Amino acid sequence: MGRFLDESLAGILPYTPGEQPQDMQYIKLNTNESPYPPSQSVIDAISCDEVQKLRLYSDPSTKLLDQAIADYYRVDISNVISGNGSDEILAFVFKAFCGKKGMACPDVTYGFYPVFCQLFGIKYISVPLDDNFCINVDDYKDIQDNVIIANPNAQTGICLGLDEIEKLVCQNKNRLVVVDEAYVDFGAQTAVPLTQKYDNLIVVQTMSKSRQLAGARVGFAVACESLINDLKTIKFSFNPYNVNRLSTIAGAMAIKDHDYFDECCDKIKLSRKYLVDCLEKLGFLVLPSKANFVLAKHEKMSGQEVYAKLKQKGILVRHLGDERIKDFVRITVGTNEQIKQLAYTLSGILFGEKI
Amino acid sequence: MGRFLDESLAGILPYTPGEQPQDMQYIKLNTNESPYPPSQSVIDAISCDEVQKLRLYSDPSTKLLDQAIADYYRVDISNVISGNGSDEILAFVFKAFCGKKGMACPDVTYGFYPVFCQLFGIKYISVPLDDNFCINVDDYKDIQDNVIIANPNAQTGICLGLDEIEKLVCQNKNRLVVVDEAYVDFGAQTAVPLTQKYDNLIVVQTMSKSRQLAGARVGFAVACESLINDLKTIKFSFNPYNVNRLSTIAGAMAIKDHDYFDECCDKIKLSRKYLVDCLEKLGFLVLPSKANFVLAKHEKMSGQEVYAKLKQKGILVRHLGDERIKDFVRITVGTNEQIKQLAYTLSGILFGEKI
Repeated sequence: MGRFLDESLAGILPYTPGEQPQDMQYIKLNTNESPYPPSQSVIDAISCDEVQKLRLYSDPSTKLLDQAIADYYRVDISNVISGNGSDEILAFVFKAFCGKKGMACPDVTYGFYPVFCQLFGIKYISVPLDDNFCINVDDYKDIQDNVIIANPNAQTGICLGLDEIEKLVCQNKNRLVVVDEAYVDFGAQTAVPLTQKYDNLIVVQTMSKSRQLAGARVGFAVACESLINDLKTIKFSFNPYNVNRLSTIAGAMAIKDHDYFDECCDKIKLSRKYLVDCLEKLGFLVLPSKANFVLAKHEKMSGQEVYAKLKQKGILVRHLGDERIKDFVRITVGTNEQIKQLAYTLSGILFGEKI
Repeated sequence: MGRFLDESLAGILPYTPGEQPQDMQYIKLNTNESPYPPSQSVIDAISCDEVQKLRLYSDPSTKLLDQAIADYYRVDISNVISGNGSDEILAFVFKAFCGKKGMACPDVTYGFYPVFCQLFGIKYISVPLDDNFCINVDDYKDIQDNVIIANPNAQTGICLGLDEIEKLVCQNKNRLVVVDEAYVDFGAQTAVPLTQKYDNLIVVQTMSKSRQLAGARVGFAVACESLINDLKTIKFSFNPYNVNRLSTIAGAMAIKDHDYFDECCDKIKLSRKYLVDCLEKLGFLVLPSKANFVLAKHEKMSGQEVYAKLKQKGILVRHLGDERIKDFVRITVGTNEQIKQLAYTLSGILFGEKI
């Protein structure tokens, strides 16, 4: 740190995003992007005419985008806020509602949650997953601080049912529950309908995974109007024009194209099954994922080694540092062709031969 | 505020951006956008091929963009950080370097500075401009807190010379000086070269005005490597993929097109002279602006009245609430055609006849 950095930030450890090689030479299965391009309606909408209009500010109310999200989820537009990716929305949530209250989350989950706590000086409570890497909702019942969980959980891909989410929300109505649904569209059930019933629930989603827009940076939250208004207070005190013109359009078009969304999600779910089958045939233990990635480990090789050897062979997967999952690698569900290539390469690495 | 908002944020007053009517029916001279479209190279670069790639995350190091900025200013890439508009960069600056230190700024300036102080719980010191609405650098000599000024100053358009900026930086080497150069390209001198000499200076710029990219949200800071690294720590603890794919490209292309940049700045400087002439002929007092806007008042009519009557006639200008400039309106320099229409309309409002 430099001599001017505020002392409250001494020792802060920023989040490390997955590698983003810009040369596109790898089979890239490390950051849970979609293997499919954005909806044709996104591609059509970002016209020369819209690029010309970049001289003008974007709509700070992001009305076009918020309305499309509201329509999709059958909620009112006053229940929606959009952001520059769901990371920004999460940052707003931590800043708005924590401080006096801390934030509790599973010990294995999205690695950004403790970073937000560091950034904003928030007390961080780590609640261990059980031995099967599952969230046990009862472990949260005595927590007075706010709670954030990812559902399906980041890194493991394991999901909770909606009844369990509702139980978490009802355990303590004076505590906020944030459900980060980055991966919900690949097989879990969204808690958005519960936001119409409970005023202490925020559901956060992203368009980076199931809507093939990681590079556009579009995320959003759905909650009761009062919570959304508080989040808007943070947004307008931080960066009122947080979503740029083209991403506002891209997000709206993506969410309106139901057919393409369903088609891509279905393909990814089928490919996930194929990936799990391939990995299990190779002797991997694979956690039961409802996300667009799987967490897998092999008794013959450490997670770090699998990652490094695959990288040498032109395939990027993610090895996460967390102690409890250090034996695993996280593999994004790609196309069947990519999975075939991965299986072939892994077979060579593990056994020196094809499967 | 809702019942969950952290008590540290009670009473926070967010920034109010200028109106952004989405129907494009107004002559829009209220938010200091460029009247000219982005560079043709920006339009060419945002191709169907790039939109296809939106499925992939953007480069969190924003290398393409940072290198283009570094090349333009002949600094090293380690001296540059890019953001989702300069508002985000400013937020990072306040968060990184204030807390123990407060922030001092002129009483009439960009209205967002005190909002950042509220958001992050930072002590705010307001230093009055002199009677001619000028910054007197000597007024800052005893200030131990950090200092931020806009040069040219927001709202007034009046600028300081580089010698005055250097004096401000040298007054106290243990204090950070932030120079917000949103409007520098329209007639003031940039302090970027001073960042190579002083480790307590940060220069912040935006591509929203002189590079016709308000809707793409691209801002940046130039400073010594240590300050930039601290800002990157904040970025990677807040939103690592803060600049989306298309804006990374748009910003890089815009800054590389020197000829178009010069052409647009020259046209705006000429139009500013025309605007000032028109306003003075109508009896307005106009502050001497080096920005792409002017602050003007008329003894026959309040600022609020001029704003409201122009809006009725389809022309948007900005009336700012600040006590010291409440008699003024701020008018963005548009095209000569827009200025002619404005003058004609103002003449009708003031005198019921043409000039």
